[in-house]
This record gives sequence, C-alpha cells and structure tokens, in this order.
Amino acid sequence: MNVEYINPFIDATLNVLKTMASFEAFHQTPQLKPDKKTWGVVTGMIGLAGDDVAGMLMLSFDEASILQIVSNLFGTPYTAINDEVTDAVGEITNMICGGAKSALAEKGYKINMATPTMIVGKDVAISQLSTTPIVTVPFEGTVGRFVIEASLTRKKSST
Amino acid sequence: MNVEYINPFIDATLNVLKTMASFEAFHQTPQLKPDKKTWGVVTGMIGLAGDDVAGMLMLSFDEASILQIVSNLFGTPYTAINDEVTDAVGEITNMICGGAKSALAEKGYKINMATPTMIVGKDVAISQLSTTPIVTVPFEGTVGRFVIEASLTRKKSST
Repeated sequence: MNVEYINPFIDATLNVLKTMASFEAFHQTPQLKPDKKTWGVVTGMIGLAGDDVAGMLMLSFDEASILQIVSNLFGTPYTAINDEVTDAVGEITNMICGGAKSALAEKGYKINMATPTMIVGKDVAISQLSTTPIVTVPFEGTVGRFVIEASLTRKKSST
Repeated sequence: MNVEYINPFIDATLNVLKTMASFEAFHQTPQLKPDKKTWGVVTGMIGLAGDDVAGMLMLSFDEASILQIVSNLFGTPYTAINDEVTDAVGEITNMICGGAKSALAEKGYKINMATPTMIVGKDVAISQLSTTPIVTVPFEGTVGRFVIEASLTRKKSST
C-alpha cells in the first residue's frame, strides 16, 4: 500500500506533542485500520481537501495519554475528559495537521483543512466513504497510548 | 446571525432527495444547534476547506426517513441501518455538498470537500473546534424527519 502521506503526519505528531506538551511517544508499524470504530475515549478528526485531493486525519487517545498531554499543555492536572480536554484534542489535531501541511504539499498533496471535529466515546461506529484504506499508526507514550488514522487520495476528476 | 451559506445547502438537500430518491421534504426555520450530540440514528459529515474558508456539513436522519430514502434510491426495501444504508448516507451528503458548491462560491465561500465520514448512533457526543455557531435546519419528510447542520467561516489568516 502507498503510505507516503503517513510520514508527515507521524513526524508532526511527535513534534507537536514534544514541543507543546513535553510528551514523548514512540510509534509502531503503520497498519490498515482493522474496524469501523473510534479507537480511544476521545477522538479528533479533521477533513482534508484540495483541488484534487480528499481525505481525513484522526487522532484517538486513551484516557491516560490525553489527560497527561492536556495536563502538560496547560500546566495544571486534568483527571477527567471534560470540554476543555475535548477542545484541546481539536487544537492538537489542528496543530499536527498544520505541521504536516508543507511536507504533504512537497509530496503532491496540496490540502486545506476543514474545521476540527471531536467525538467523545470509545467504539463509536464511524466509517469513511472512500475506497482508499485508512492507515492506523499506534503510538506508545510515556503515559498511555494513542493512534493516528489517516487516508488521503488524489481524486480521479475534480468537481 | 449570518446564515447566508445555509440556503445553498437547503436547496441542494431538497433537490438531491427529490431527483435521486423521489423523496419530498419541507424545511423549518434554521436555528442554532442546541447541543453537542448527533441528532439522528445515522449521520453523514463532510469537512469543507478552501484557501480562506473552513467548515463542515452534517446530515442526520431518523430511521424512518433514511430507510425510505435508501429504499427509493435503490428500488428495493431496506428495513435496518446496515453498511449499505450507511454508505448511502455518505453518498447523499457528498451529492448535496457538491450540489451546493457553485452557489456557495458565488457567495464567496470557495470550498473543496473532504472524504465523507459516517457515524452510526443517536446522541453520540460530537463537537466542533470553532467559534462559529452551527446552524441546524429541521426537515419533515413524506416519511420521517432529518436535519442538516452546517458551519462555514472565513479564516482570519490563511496558513
């Protein structure tokens, strides 16, 4: 499978979490998304669209990882998934996508970003209308785990 | 509130459902989305992004309306929300958004469309990272009810 677009997202994820939230993580091998469900307890999603490109990026966190990330980000402890944490997931998704944008353009994926959407809940039934497979990259953080999931494809015809 | 962008979505919704699925509907007054939940049992969502525009469109159907629409669309009865119905929701969302695109461009919202995403489940916790309010338009169909929900905003600075 062609996953040339995944590396800019991996790089931006590691970079944003380290610089913004002092949060170190290590990624495992990219794989195809095995189901049609949200992976973690809170998920940030952002639609990607260009003149001849369409796709999306999702970040999905377990409770331990996102509470640590948001606690580090704001310098105050968070112990439950509330609106502030949910909004922070949207901001983080936005920053990672923005961080990947120029590297993606160099690979021929010239994208703009839609408004980030956040979903709270594990195993929420979610699917994409696309023949392009979704690539999942699992990450192990200093605390907890999360995944990034992305698909990006060049459109056959521009409408 | 500035809802100039909502009329192209309303027009395209009525037009797509009538021409593709012989499904008549009447819309009520647009209002602000009152909560952070999916309205219906199945929801299609599409991110909208341009050089200086970001937003999203959601269509959310009750079971009666979407089963009738998909039955009409495919000419065979559907009695439960399955993968075909869910994919059809993504297709319908895509067609409506495509139908609204040129009218939106005339109003200064030049957008491209991300990959449609479908969520199955009522009252799924979903929110947007945006200060722009989400406009909800309730529709009454010949069978059942559905809503369209949209937000679209010009970005202050292009990144």
